[in-house]
Amino acid sequence: MTSIPSADPPRRIAVVGTGLLGASIAQAAARTGIAVRGWDEEPTNRARAAETGALRAAGSLAEAVADAEVVVVSTPIRAIPEVVVRCLRAAPAATVTDVGSIKTAIVREVRGRVRDADAFARFVPGHPMGGSERSGPEHAAASLVDGIVWVVTPTDGSEAAHAARLESFVVTVGAQPVLMSPERHDRLVAVVSHLPQVASTALMDLASTEEADEPDLLLLSAGGFRDLTRLAASNPHLWSDILVANREEVARAIDRYIARLRVLREAVADERAAEVERTFDEAKRARLRLAAKPLVRSGVAVLQVPIPDRPGALATLASGMAERGVNIEDLQIVHSAEGGRGLVHLTVAEAAVDDAWRTLTDVGFDPVRLA
Amino acid sequence: MTSIPSADPPRRIAVVGTGLLGASIAQAAARTGIAVRGWDEEPTNRARAAETGALRAAGSLAEAVADAEVVVVSTPIRAIPEVVVRCLRAAPAATVTDVGSIKTAIVREVRGRVRDADAFARFVPGHPMGGSERSGPEHAAASLVDGIVWVVTPTDGSEAAHAARLESFVVTVGAQPVLMSPERHDRLVAVVSHLPQVASTALMDLASTEEADEPDLLLLSAGGFRDLTRLAASNPHLWSDILVANREEVARAIDRYIARLRVLREAVADERAAEVERTFDEAKRARLRLAAKPLVRSGVAVLQVPIPDRPGALATLASGMAERGVNIEDLQIVHSAEGGRGLVHLTVAEAAVDDAWRTLTDVGFDPVRLA
Repeated sequence: MTSIPSADPPRRIAVVGTGLLGASIAQAAARTGIAVRGWDEEPTNRARAAETGALRAAGSLAEAVADAEVVVVSTPIRAIPEVVVRCLRAAPAATVTDVGSIKTAIVREVRGRVRDADAFARFVPGHPMGGSERSGPEHAAASLVDGIVWVVTPTDGSEAAHAARLESFVVTVGAQPVLMSPERHDRLVAVVSHLPQVASTALMDLASTEEADEPDLLLLSAGGFRDLTRLAASNPHLWSDILVANREEVARAIDRYIARLRVLREAVADERAAEVERTFDEAKRARLRLAAKPLVRSGVAVLQVPIPDRPGALATLASGMAERGVNIEDLQIVHSAEGGRGLVHLTVAEAAVDDAWRTLTDVGFDPVRLA
Repeated sequence: MTSIPSADPPRRIAVVGTGLLGASIAQAAARTGIAVRGWDEEPTNRARAAETGALRAAGSLAEAVADAEVVVVSTPIRAIPEVVVRCLRAAPAATVTDVGSIKTAIVREVRGRVRDADAFARFVPGHPMGGSERSGPEHAAASLVDGIVWVVTPTDGSEAAHAARLESFVVTVGAQPVLMSPERHDRLVAVVSHLPQVASTALMDLASTEEADEPDLLLLSAGGFRDLTRLAASNPHLWSDILVANREEVARAIDRYIARLRVLREAVADERAAEVERTFDEAKRARLRLAAKPLVRSGVAVLQVPIPDRPGALATLASGMAERGVNIEDLQIVHSAEGGRGLVHLTVAEAAVDDAWRTLTDVGFDPVRLA
């Protein structure tokens, strides 16, 4: 028998895996008054997460989830299917979700192990697209969840009411739910997340191999090369897991990327300058449209601000903001292809944009709102 | 008869093409006491460059270069060969250089038009690797030349004494001369400058085409995708010229890049996770070595500073710097693959690094010097 959950936000949840993301979700839930229980195989993670005050540590996984309406499985990706199965058994009425950055492989494994369709109906996979370069519950913050896109990917076996309960939870903690199938999720992230990772790593790999014969090579590298290779410093173990788990979509995305590269290569080699220029022009327009959209976050505004090159210019900007209590969510100095400076992209909460604007114009800057 | 220049820095130079880069070089020269004459086909550029006080505008190209020991040709790239030829004729003893971002195509054209080996011996091509996202002499600044890598690429016909005079000039204006052949320059920039441009444009092109069928695609894009596609917003006309002019090396670099992508693709598709992880690990090490080097600039230091997520944190940092008169040369908020924040990379002049360090620790930050 399937218990039908209400689409009201849950009052009690459990977080299983209380690392950075799990503990941040716990904090975002706790601040809205939701009671959170937590469990982690790692006693240190468990204790540190409990120290933040956002959750009560349980003595076992079963104890953590027993009473929960929603269970969020936020363990490392390899452990997710096994832990989801255990949670579906231990919490016979709960909606169970996960935070893995690929979805179909997880769904396949869980489906293979859960023969009971009513239990499988309570599994609604998800992918909160937030994170930080840090790890561990001691760096957790509710703000890591604020406004992020949280993809909710019901399977063909998921009960609609459980998907609705998860969506309601996502909204309650301050994130933006985006609904799609697990397959579509994996197809899209292959292009916008996994392919950039591969493209960056392959470029750094190539340059570093060639540097062996050309020791001056990286001396000539500028800001553009650094932009392109920044992702190459990501966690190798995590990424090999993700790419292999999503291998079919990743291989397809790489094939399509190689096809684009070949078209450009032929146009360059054949001196078809007008065609090269047209491709560059279309890509430029698309990139400028993207720059005018906020990063994967709703609830924020982006201001473009020209900055004079003298000591104190950034300080004037930042202290003006601080005096009005405007938090700078993000700040990027925008570079040309060959370095240089002069423009800052400033991200602030939507609610603070008027204050930010007034502060900037008061101290003599000339902001333009991009998003 | 070849006049043999001394390796002392020149006392009189001419800048032909007084746009952003030409006018910046003029300012960097003028501040050391070098007399600068300027010429630009465009009367507005000529007048604006003269208004900065760094150069005296001449009535003609011939008048500008007549008396110069070094002539810097900094016109748009298509005009460079023609203008170099005119300068070699009009200034019969001067060292003539250019600032084009590709070298062999320019050398080939100049060689084809200058039959006199003594005149050709005075041509020493170059490539100052600085720039800005702005253009026009009104945005020129001597600081655009400070500490940049300025590649000096004598041809097989260049007289050594003229190359030495150009090197001496480069040092005098505050840049870092790096000597190599025109062929080697074009091979290296194909990998670290032209290939990243192509890789970025091809990725943006792919994503924007696929977005037509998958409207949510870019909603799932995060900081990593933005890093990879930032270069795609560069000037299409300029870049199609550069890529076509360096087409052989660019095609070779794309081929080698595609080969790397294929190797990674096969390892992913065949589930060879250990091999994928090894490639990612090697790329990560190479990228971290690169992060530990300054951007194409000498004379600067990079500090890594953890930043708490609260209003005023950046302001405390920036105002502390301003109070001690430390100019922030560059500031980057370092993101993880999926967004988030927490680390700032701060670039300051080498001479100011101790002040910057003390300021940061005084106000409670915990900086680490990266470069």
